[in-house]
Parts: sequence; structure tokens; C-alpha cells
Amino acid sequence: MTFEEILKKHGADIIALRRKLHHNPELSKQEFLTTTILQEFLEQKGITVTKPLKTGLVASIKRGKGKVIAFRADIDALPVKEETSLDFASGHENVMHACGHDGHAAILAFTLLCFLEDPSWQGEVRGIFQPSEEMYGGAKPMLASGALSGVDMIFALHIWPELEEGVLASTAGTIMASNDRFSITIKGKSAHGATPHLGTDPIVSACNLVLALQTLISREIAPWEGAVLTIGNISSGTAYNIIPAETILNGTIRTLNNTTRDKLEKGLLRLCDHTAKAFGTEAVVEYVEQYPPTINHLEALKLVQNNLPADLTYREVEHPSMAAEDFAYYLQEIPGALLFLGSGTKEYAYPLHHSKFNFNEKLLTYGAKLFHRVGKAYLSQS
Amino acid sequence: MTFEEILKKHGADIIALRRKLHHNPELSKQEFLTTTILQEFLEQKGITVTKPLKTGLVASIKRGKGKVIAFRADIDALPVKEETSLDFASGHENVMHACGHDGHAAILAFTLLCFLEDPSWQGEVRGIFQPSEEMYGGAKPMLASGALSGVDMIFALHIWPELEEGVLASTAGTIMASNDRFSITIKGKSAHGATPHLGTDPIVSACNLVLALQTLISREIAPWEGAVLTIGNISSGTAYNIIPAETILNGTIRTLNNTTRDKLEKGLLRLCDHTAKAFGTEAVVEYVEQYPPTINHLEALKLVQNNLPADLTYREVEHPSMAAEDFAYYLQEIPGALLFLGSGTKEYAYPLHHSKFNFNEKLLTYGAKLFHRVGKAYLSQS
Amino acid sequence: MTFEEILKKHGADIIALRRKLHHNPELSKQEFLTTTILQEFLEQKGITVTKPLKTGLVASIKRGKGKVIAFRADIDALPVKEETSLDFASGHENVMHACGHDGHAAILAFTLLCFLEDPSWQGEVRGIFQPSEEMYGGAKPMLASGALSGVDMIFALHIWPELEEGVLASTAGTIMASNDRFSITIKGKSAHGATPHLGTDPIVSACNLVLALQTLISREIAPWEGAVLTIGNISSGTAYNIIPAETILNGTIRTLNNTTRDKLEKGLLRLCDHTAKAFGTEAVVEYVEQYPPTINHLEALKLVQNNLPADLTYREVEHPSMAAEDFAYYLQEIPGALLFLGSGTKEYAYPLHHSKFNFNEKLLTYGAKLFHRVGKAYLSQS
Amino acid sequence: MTFEEILKKHGADIIALRRKLHHNPELSKQEFLTTTILQEFLEQKGITVTKPLKTGLVASIKRGKGKVIAFRADIDALPVKEETSLDFASGHENVMHACGHDGHAAILAFTLLCFLEDPSWQGEVRGIFQPSEEMYGGAKPMLASGALSGVDMIFALHIWPELEEGVLASTAGTIMASNDRFSITIKGKSAHGATPHLGTDPIVSACNLVLALQTLISREIAPWEGAVLTIGNISSGTAYNIIPAETILNGTIRTLNNTTRDKLEKGLLRLCDHTAKAFGTEAVVEYVEQYPPTINHLEALKLVQNNLPADLTYREVEHPSMAAEDFAYYLQEIPGALLFLGSGTKEYAYPLHHSKFNFNEKLLTYGAKLFHRVGKAYLSQS
Repeated sequence: MTFEEILKKHGADIIALRRKLHHNPELSKQEFLTTTILQEFLEQKGITVTKPLKTGLVASIKRGKGKVIAFRADIDALPVKEETSLDFASGHENVMHACGHDGHAAILAFTLLCFLEDPSWQGEVRGIFQPSEEMYGGAKPMLASGALSGVDMIFALHIWPELEEGVLASTAGTIMASNDRFSITIKGKSAHGATPHLGTDPIVSACNLVLALQTLISREIAPWEGAVLTIGNISSGTAYNIIPAETILNGTIRTLNNTTRDKLEKGLLRLCDHTAKAFGTEAVVEYVEQYPPTINHLEALKLVQNNLPADLTYREVEHPSMAAEDFAYYLQEIPGALLFLGSGTKEYAYPLHHSKFNFNEKLLTYGAKLFHRVGKAYLSQS
Repeated sequence: MTFEEILKKHGADIIALRRKLHHNPELSKQEFLTTTILQEFLEQKGITVTKPLKTGLVASIKRGKGKVIAFRADIDALPVKEETSLDFASGHENVMHACGHDGHAAILAFTLLCFLEDPSWQGEVRGIFQPSEEMYGGAKPMLASGALSGVDMIFALHIWPELEEGVLASTAGTIMASNDRFSITIKGKSAHGATPHLGTDPIVSACNLVLALQTLISREIAPWEGAVLTIGNISSGTAYNIIPAETILNGTIRTLNNTTRDKLEKGLLRLCDHTAKAFGTEAVVEYVEQYPPTINHLEALKLVQNNLPADLTYREVEHPSMAAEDFAYYLQEIPGALLFLGSGTKEYAYPLHHSKFNFNEKLLTYGAKLFHRVGKAYLSQS
Repeated sequence: MTFEEILKKHGADIIALRRKLHHNPELSKQEFLTTTILQEFLEQKGITVTKPLKTGLVASIKRGKGKVIAFRADIDALPVKEETSLDFASGHENVMHACGHDGHAAILAFTLLCFLEDPSWQGEVRGIFQPSEEMYGGAKPMLASGALSGVDMIFALHIWPELEEGVLASTAGTIMASNDRFSITIKGKSAHGATPHLGTDPIVSACNLVLALQTLISREIAPWEGAVLTIGNISSGTAYNIIPAETILNGTIRTLNNTTRDKLEKGLLRLCDHTAKAFGTEAVVEYVEQYPPTINHLEALKLVQNNLPADLTYREVEHPSMAAEDFAYYLQEIPGALLFLGSGTKEYAYPLHHSKFNFNEKLLTYGAKLFHRVGKAYLSQS
Repeated sequence: MTFEEILKKHGADIIALRRKLHHNPELSKQEFLTTTILQEFLEQKGITVTKPLKTGLVASIKRGKGKVIAFRADIDALPVKEETSLDFASGHENVMHACGHDGHAAILAFTLLCFLEDPSWQGEVRGIFQPSEEMYGGAKPMLASGALSGVDMIFALHIWPELEEGVLASTAGTIMASNDRFSITIKGKSAHGATPHLGTDPIVSACNLVLALQTLISREIAPWEGAVLTIGNISSGTAYNIIPAETILNGTIRTLNNTTRDKLEKGLLRLCDHTAKAFGTEAVVEYVEQYPPTINHLEALKLVQNNLPADLTYREVEHPSMAAEDFAYYLQEIPGALLFLGSGTKEYAYPLHHSKFNFNEKLLTYGAKLFHRVGKAYLSQS
């Protein structure tokens, strides 16, 4: 079957699938109904799936002997109250597929159908429907479950309203940043505000630290390393006239490579330790490594560029996104690439995470055709 | 009647009064029962009172023609859960006379009885039982009610456990600091923590301000001016990875004279305005003038020093207290002095505002004898 | 003549020329002997030159009708005491061709000879021997003199020891940063150090500013904009116990595009103005726009990539250099590109500006062959 | 002889002495001529002197058995170019008695003459003409020489134009501050300003330190401790575009008591050490203890207050002077007091250290009469 024939046969089902997923959004780690919907859809089409985790699926189509290519879709939704007027708008209060994961899952299902209906390839095509991308990081347990074992190359895409519809953008190298989280407690000694010499002021110590941390970005990393350190939250004290015992800071560090990431973590610890001590206070730091940078492999990106469907135009991203993706973990293991599938039009202009976000459903076709072509090209390499 | 005779006649009643007040502590602006207890006590003894405010009393004894001297006692209690094992401990949950105002009121009642029983003076003795010293400032409405009209000189005392029992300490000039309150809102622009250039970070701006404000004390006032500026509270943001829209700071300024107070208020406004603008943010400042510095008059203090009862030893305070007192308002109007009546012993060692604070009831005698002597001396001046 | 024949005919002269230039290094604006050496060399070879400025030359070879291509070499040396043991080491005390400009000039002369001996092209080839790249910016007066009038495309190269010999590196877009200079005077009021309240401390104000300026990089520009702000110099006061009247800061801003450059200039002025005022001081800022970012044109770079001699391998630069080049001015006017010609080997390992810097003279051949091929390709475009 | 008779006999000589001293000012450690002038004057009058140091004198008059009282005058001048039009203006280029030490020395000589001519006392009167008060601290070597051995009480005065003529001001406790000096070198690592990540910026580290040091005053000492920390000098770097290797700071700490002084020294070392390390730099601190606080003894001051000549009115100083005096060292050894002798009038309005400073010579009489009365009163105590 040609792609056009496959589209004719399954296109309406895919749209129905996407709408059903959209109508039933579920938060990270809670994608039970989503998993069931996908499982039933795939099994009904004749594709067998396994469930290595509580939520999410791995589907596989094998044919003869050859390489193994995987595609990954994330399937969780966001704590956003949907404000579209779609027929199939969220049926769950304050949860919405505002990040396009319903589209990602439908594209992956469509891709699997393409390979199912197309006899002209050998090897294995694997579809990873991964839970918990928005929070908790479902990629790590999925990898731990063996979902990637034997896979030679992997691709994922993200619907991207900042780019026009019809554009496929990516880059060899870092496409999305790492995202680490830190929490700092500055411990001083409480006293009445009228007698500061009887206490140790954690607010003054913490404020000095906030300024000092700016220099990690302005002085300690190369200008082209492109990292960010943000304190998103500071809180201390309850009364205007009492020096509190401690001040708490929470923040994030974003980097484009693990070297910079390590350097900033070390720098943060050094600055916290010593600026706290300088003021007679103590810093207790919890540093949580979250998603690493998402670093595309050149060979995978070239495969995409060389097998682009006519519907799409390739463009180099202007710069990496400072947002993070747990697809990064897959690319630490095997070659692959993350691709941004442009969805922006006058009609579909809302950004990701917006309560009115939506996309043209022809993206489902674009995505599946792309993955089908790229996958076949890869599997046909000797 | 001699003081000894007065003591014999009324001493037990005064102790009973103090214990009744202690057992029935009431918070600022809510001293209704306290007022009734005092009113009944005084009227029973033959002293007429007026009630110029909802709570609190003014008592007056007039005899012939002469000067008018006033004594002021504060009568409110604190939101402290009493932890003494006194028979007459607080009967009100989480309210306690932990600042000795029960003693102040009893001393004032005793003082009035002394003058009542002593025929050897002419003029007027006024007793001001003032509400709301701990919060809200009852002195201002008491003054506005005319309670001080015609008064020539006024005294107040505070039981003071930091000084040994038997010491009376004070100073000509400032004995307690002013206490102003300020609230600063730094308004920035929220953005995702990964893209700080799309927002304006109020936390960084606020932290810079906190450091800059230190220089008001370290650079802008004379070293002997002895002022304090404390930020007691900072809060901003709820997520580690979102730059919040604003940061809120609350703090206090304490000074020993109004010139320094004005200078620091102006300096605060200047620093807030410009450091906020420097970072592209805006500062909205609410500056609330609370109690002025309590500044004793030399002539009033000399009267005390020259008429000290034998039970007491005068001592110059080592330095002004940085706490504040709304008795300050009276001393802005007429000559007078605030006196610290030492109460510290091995047994009575807890500080003011402590849940186990108490004092030896012989202080009631010390205080009344002092006020009686000082008052008579004043009234006998031609 | 083939390139090999040209090399045979003129190669030794070119090497001699380079050595003569190297032996006679001259600082910016003082390249009189350099100019004479080059003029005599070219005229002797039959190439006519003009001297639009006091130093430097413009050579031109015209043949029939066609496009005009230019190549630019910088010709000034550095205030460095040469420490090589070359026969032709610098004969001028404390001046050295430590930045390879002797090579650039020789390559340009060689390029002109190639076009002179090669009949197979039409149009004009112009060689711009530009003075004062290291200081003062000779590009601007050269442009003002009309040296670029009629030119359609321009190329320059820089010998680059950080890259291996045989590599040619560049990028479409920014290859070198802008470099602006600023001088800030914080005006306070002098006082004895024992009485800071009688003065206005410019040191504290300036130190706050230095920290505040860090946030221009850490908060106000996108992480991928890659800018630098450095304070290289601070000075204030002469006595340990006197608050001085002013503090002076000097620094540099480097950016990769003019939008960021404008944003940082505005941000600097805003921060200086308001942080100075916050502390009761005044900031007087002199901001001097020096070289803009050097931004290569895609079409020019493609021409190079498509016409690379076999001796050279093209490589994308890993990141722009944060150093600056006044070749930037030419690229603001017409299409063109700056290329980094790798010179690093075990033997030639010293960095630019080092007192032992040198390069293999076969780079003269590499450079001329490259320019010759690229130029011919351009001129042969219809 | 009465004081009036003594004045009649020696008054003109004293004025001549003062003028001769004024005409021959000498810098600290160089008071050779001054010493000779004083020695000749005293010996001619019949008073024997010793010279325990290279400059300066100790004179002594003994009579019978009794206590020993000492008076101290400083004798050095300042590096100021005199701009008065006095007949006896400085004859030494750029050196001037602009701090009244000529007056102090003449008063001490006059005091000695008073005791010489007055038979009504017993014991010893010692006059210490001390060198090097302005710099180097002559008090310490003078003490080490034994000049104070056997002395029971000591007084000094300072002519004080901030107070009106006829006022004598002082206080029990601290009258002048301590004065310590510190020098801090922040060691970083030099780099080009375009690549800060290759260096360690000492300027940013030093500027953070300057702000952090403000909190020693604003947070770590009690508001009534009245200390000052001033950075008088910062210097770093020579080029706008090079990050320098180090930054140097010089400053002073002034305190009113040795407890605060020790606390600030420790706090300074702590802040330097840790803020430097926070930024990856190193702080090398030299802390030089100079003059301690000058702390008057109550008993000595009472003696003055009780024996004031009718020409003078006693006044409490409004606050300690933050300037320092090496007379402080004497008061660490034995009881005594430093007194400020008011000299301000419309005519004599210039402050100390001013090139036009002068005082009414009747101060010589005031000072001697005061010392004479106080000394006699002390010696007559059993």
C-alpha cells in the first residue's frame, strides 16, 4: 500500500484516536485510561503491545532480520483548564492535552500502521508510548524496563507552534536544555529585629547569595555555553520585626551540555557554602539532577534531512530551546534525534501549555509520513 | 497617713488587684474586663474615673489649686500562652500579662491611693490607665480625647527584668527607640525560569535592594546615631522554575531621634525607587510611622533622681532600648520621663514577653512609693 | 599559467616579502615603511596601487567588464617584544607581527599576482591593504575613502593557530564579536573615613554597580545570545582613611549581534544611572562603540565551501570568537566572509599575540590559492 | 604666688614660646628643634627634663612626699601648607601646627611653671611632651621608656574649635574612637575580558566583599556600639579589556570599645576569607591595630568637673569623636581623662587640620589654670 492508500484506510481512525485521547487527558503517572485507549486501538489493528510500566505501552512490529528502529511518543497531559471550544475538549476538570502529546501518540500509532501495511522493509519497528514526560521523567523507568533493548536508532517529534506549519526544525547537537532543580536553606539565628547583633540574619545572607549566583552565568561559563540559573522562589520570615531563623531559595539550572552542567552544579555548591559562611550562616543545598540536555546525533539528523517528505521543509533551529525533554535519556544511550514539527498558523497560534492550544490535524499525516520514510530509509541501510 | 500606714491599709487590696488583672489578661483594644476591674476598684476606694475611650480609664484627684501631675500605666496583655504555675495565672487561653502591665496598672492604682490618703499636697494627680500599648498605639487616641489637657508633667514606669530588683534606671534624652514599619513590593514581570530575558526578575532586584539598604546604616547615619533597619520577611514565587511577578519585603526602622528617623525614611524611599528602576522593576513602598522615640526630659529625670525612695538605687541606662513605647507620644507634648523599674532576681529571671515572666510583688510598693514622692515633690514646687 | 607555475615564478618573492614585513613591524597608524615595502613590491610586479590614507594601499587589477571582488589584509603589528629566534625577527624594539598580519599582507600580494598571471577571468580584483586593525579601526577611514566603491563581494582571512594547519573554518552568521568600551565615573562626596555620614561613598556605590551589571548577562539577554560584560579596571581613592570623591570603572561589552549590543548599551546606561542615584551618587558614562560583530554572509561562505582547494578542509567554527575585527565594517556594506586559516602544528603552537608566535610559510600558498579559486569562481558567475 | 601673679610673671614668655613652636613646626618623629626649644625654655625656668626618646621630653617637679600626677602634650605638626597671615606663621615649607599641638605644649609648660611657683602642694608633677601623635604613635615608646612609671593619674587636653571658646567638654567613658587599618588583596586569575571563563575575576569578588562588609556595621554590632568601617581605596587593573590578577582594598575600622573592635576584626577576616573563596579567589588580609579607643575614667573626670576654673563651663560631649588619639594608651595603664578645650569663635572658626586654623592665645591661660587647679586638687587628696 502506498502512503495515500494507508491514509485512506486508517486516516479517519487516527483522527478519532487523537480526539479520544484529547478528550481524556491524564496527568503524569496517571495515564491509565490513555494506555487502555491506545492498547485497544493498536490491538484492534493487529499490533501487539507490552506494558512494561504501570502506564504507557511498547508496541513492536517485526519482519525478517534487520535493524531495529524506534519511535517514541509521550502521552501525559497538563494541569491546565482547557478553554478551547472543541467538540472533543477535555472531559477531565483542570487537565488538558495542552502540550500536543495527544498528537504525538496519534502520530506514533499512525506510523506503526504505515509500517504494518507496508511490506517493503525488514527488521523491527518499535513504538514507545512513554508516560510522565511533563513530570517525574517516564523515560528513565522505560529505559530501565528494557524498552530500548536492541534498538539501533530512535526518533521523537514535538509539535511546535512557534514554527510555521510545514516546517520541520532540528539541529545536530543540543536541541533542548538540561533542567536541574535546587533548593537552598540558609540557616541563621532568629532575633528581634531591633537587636540584629543578637541573631544571624539569613535574609541578608540569602540576598547576597542570589546576587553572587548571577556571576556563575556572567563570569564562570563561556559566553557561547548558553546556560541559565533562575531563583524562582525565596521565602523567609512571617513578621516585619523579627529576624527569622532561615531563608529558603528554590531554583533551576539549564545548560546545553553536561560539562557546563557539572561546572554550574559545582559552582553553585561552592558559592552557597562560602557566602553562607561569610555571613556566619550555613547553607544546606539539595541539588536534584533532572533531565539532561537533549543532544541529537548527526547521523540521525542527516537521515531525516535526506528523507524529508515533500510536505515539509527542513530548517535549522535558530537556537536550542531552554526547555527540557526526557527524550534526552534515550539519546544518551543510542543515536537518534528529536524533531520540532511546526504547527503555527493564524488559526493555530496559541503557544504550548496555553489553555487554547490546538493544531491542525493534518500534522498527524505529516508526522507519520515523515517517520515512515525515515524509518524505511534506515532499515534499508545495509 | 504615712506611706507605711497607707501600705498597711491598702497593700493587700493592691496585691489582690494585681492578681485579678493577671488572671484576666486581654489583648490590645479588648481590655473591657480589665477596665471594669480597675473602675470598680477605684470607685470602691472613692476615686472617680472617666472613660474617654472604649477601654481604659482616666482617674483624677484634685485638691485646692496647683499644678497637675499625671502618671500613666498601660493595661493590655500579649498573645502568649502562660506557662507559670501561679494560682492567679491567666484564665484566658493564649493571652498573658507577660509584659508586666498588670503590675503597672496596680502601681498606678496604689499611687492614686497614696495621694488620696495623703493630705499634704495641692493641685491635681491624674492616673491614665491606657489601653493598647502592645499594638495599635492607645496613646494617640488617649491624647486626642483630652486626657492630658492641663497636665504639667507626666511619668510612667516599666518593670524591667534585665535590671536587678531595687534599681531604677533611666536617662535624660532617648530611652527607647522609634519603631516604624515598611512594606516594599518589587514589581517585575513573570516569565519561565528558562527564559529570563522574557521577564523582569523581581527577586534579583529585591535581593540587591536588601544589600543596598544595609548602607543606610553603615554609610548614611553618624555612627553614634544608633539606628537599626531590619528586613523581617521576604517572599516571592511559588515554583522553582518560574520567575515570579513580584517580591514582597517587610521590615522595621528603629531610631533614637526624629532627625535620623526622617533621614532613614527618605533614604529608604530613594534606595527603593532607584534600585528597583535600575533593574527595570518598580518599587511600591508603604511606610508606616509607628511609635516615635521616647525622649525623657532632663527636668523630669532630675526630679526623680532627687526624690528617690531609699529602696531604690538610680542608675543611668547603659544605652537606650531599641524597643519602642507609645508613652513617647506623651513626652512629645509635655515634660516627663519613662523609668525602668528593675525586677531581676534569681527567682524572677525570665525576660519580658516570656511565658514564665513574673516579678516580686514588692515592686508594687516600690513603684507607688516612688511616684508618690516624685509627685509630691513636683506639686510642692512653687 | 597554472597556480603551480605562478608559485614557481613568484613563490620565493612572496616569502621574501613576508619576511621583510615581519622584520619591519609597525604599530597601528604608523605603517609607513610597511606601506612602502608593499607599494614597491606590487609596482615592481606591475600592479598599480593608490594610497587613499596616510598608510595602507589599495591595489587593483581590471580586465574587461564584470563583477568586482575584493580581498582585504590588515598590515599593522603589535606592541610585543618578539622572542622568536627567526633570522627575520623584528628589527623594531617592542613591536612584533605577533598576529600574523605579515602573512595576511603577503597572501594578499600573492593573490594579486595569481590574478595578474591568470588570463581566464573578467572584471576587477581589488586588494585592500588596510592599516590600524589592532587599534583605532582603519576599516572606517578606508571605507570613507571609497576603497570599497563598486565592490560586489569581499573576503578576508585570519591565520588561526587554535585550528590545525590545513583547516579552513568559518560560519554563516557571526564569526567574531562586537567590542565596545565604556568608562563610568561614579561621583560621590569626599569625607573623612571616620564620618561617612558627612560624605557620599562612591566606592560602595560603584561596587554595587559592578554586581548589578552582572545581571545584564545573567537575566536580560537570552542564554543563546552569548554576550560578555567585563569591568577590567576600577580605581578610587589614595588613602585608607578618606572616602574619595569618585570611583572610575572601565570595561568592555562583547556581543554577537547588534540587537544584543543595543540592548546591553541601554541596560548599562539604565543600571549606571539608577544604581548611582540609589546611593545618592551620580554616574557619568562614556560609551564608545568600537567594532561591530563580524557577520558573514551565507552566499559568500557557500562560494568558499564550493571552491575549496584540495589542501584545505572546511570546518564550521565551534562557536564565534569573542575577539573583534574591524573587517566587520566591510560586511555591513557588502556581502563577504571572514575565514580562519588554521596554522596550528606541534612546531607552530603559540597563540596569537604571543612573543613566539609564528606559522609555516606554506600557509601563504594555501591562502593565495584559496582566494584565487574563490575569486575566479565569483567573477565567472554571470 | 597666685595664678594672677604667675601669669604676670610668665605669661609673655609662654606666648613667645607658643609662637616660636608655631613658627618651627616639625612632622612626627622629626621634632628635634621643637624638643630643643622646649628643653631650653624649661631649663631656663629651672625645671629639669629628661629625654627618654629621640624627640620629646619628660619634665618633673617634685616636692616632698605624695601622689604623682602627669599632664601630657603632643608636640608634632602636620604636612599642611600654612595659609594664615600670622607673624609667626610656619617657617617650614608644607609643615604646619594645624592641630594646635603648639598650644598643647605651651599650656603644659605654663602648667609646670604654675606648680613651680606655687608652694602649696606635695608630691610630683610630671609633664610629658610626647612626639608623633599624628603618625606612628609616640605614646607607645613613651610608655615603654618608663615615662609613666609611678604616675597615679594623667590628663591631656585638645584644643577643639568645634566647641565655643570657654567650654570644656568631655565624658566619662569613650571620648575618641579606636583606629585600625586593613589592607585586603583579592587574588584571582587574569584573562582577556572577552573570555571571563578562562580567568577568575578579582574585581567582582572584591566588589561583593565591599557590600558584604557593610553588614558588619548594619547587622553584627549593637546599634549603640557606634562603629565605622570605611574602604578608602580600591584599585585593580590597567586596561579596560583585561581581567586583572588582583584587586587591592584599603580601609579603616573605628570603634568605641575593644570588644567591638575585636568583633569587627574577626568579622572582617571571616567575610574576607569566605567571600573570596565563594568566587574562587583568595583574600590576603593585613590587619594593623593602631590606636585603641580613648576611654576616660570617671574619677578623673569628676575631679575636673569639681575643680573647674570660673573661665570654663563644663559640657558633656554630645557623642564620642570618631577620630583617634594615642593618649588612649596612657588611659589603658592608669586613671585619667582627655579634655576638649573649646576654641571656636567667629574669628577662630577654622577646623583642625585646616591651613588657616588658629586659636585665641588666652586658651593658654585657660588650659594652664585648669591643669593647675585639677592637679592641686588631686595632690591634696589624702
